Amino acid sequence: MKDAWLNKVNWTQDGLVPAVAQDAATGRVLTVAWMNREALQKTVQTGDAHYWSRSRRKLWRKGEDSGHVQKVKAIRLDCDEDTILLEVEQTGGIACHTGRQSCFFQKLVGAEWVVCDPVLKDPKEIYRGAGS
Amino acid sequence: MKDAWLNKVNWTQDGLVPAVAQDAATGRVLTVAWMNREALQKTVQTGDAHYWSRSRRKLWRKGEDSGHVQKVKAIRLDCDEDTILLEVEQTGGIACHTGRQSCFFQKLVGAEWVVCDPVLKDPKEIYRGAGS
Repeated sequence: MKDAWLNKVNWTQDGLVPAVAQDAATGRVLTVAWMNREALQKTVQTGDAHYWSRSRRKLWRKGEDSGHVQKVKAIRLDCDEDTILLEVEQTGGIACHTGRQSCFFQKLVGAEWVVCDPVLKDPKEIYRGAGS
Repeated sequence: MKDAWLNKVNWTQDGLVPAVAQDAATGRVLTVAWMNREALQKTVQTGDAHYWSRSRRKLWRKGEDSGHVQKVKAIRLDCDEDTILLEVEQTGGIACHTGRQSCFFQKLVGAEWVVCDPVLKDPKEIYRGAGS
């Protein structure tokens, strides 16, 4: 019964769930990524947000290349048990690989998506290798 | 080119994207649901959040049965263009079909999901018909 909490999650057929990460202090929604069982387990074990990269098909510790680790303060589950919400402390104040605070930096204005958040740090300075 | 903003969204093979709804005033994450093109279009046209119900396979105006409509204040798109974020005014202060403010009312405490938000209104009082 040790994994009962993991079994309660309503994983997709691919074994994934979407995970929203929200800044615990400001409430800003930072990222939405995907988790598999291992990612959720590692997140709990280490206190750092881990995700499953669908494009790279590998487990991924957020910030492993950039240093922009997400320190997890709370983990929530929704009523359908198919979505995770992480309340995090965002190291460096930058969650997005573009060097912005949040990945949600485009806003719909009329019929156009307008970039409305500044780049806080040049991605070239953030990444010496690859990844996010 | 009228639909360029819709074409910019990176729809899944099933023609969907996840949509996070966040309370515009408090920052609380309320719901995560799915949108297809029509749902996003209707959301923009009406100012009320519309979603695609995967279980019922139909377009759905949030609050159509409960009255707990989500008035959309802003629509954001993430860097991968595959997730929507709605900033909403939540009518009635209740987003969840269980009668709670947010669908994310379960929190991981040790190895257990603990219900940690109160029911604000009995679902029996909310729904006379069906749906959410």
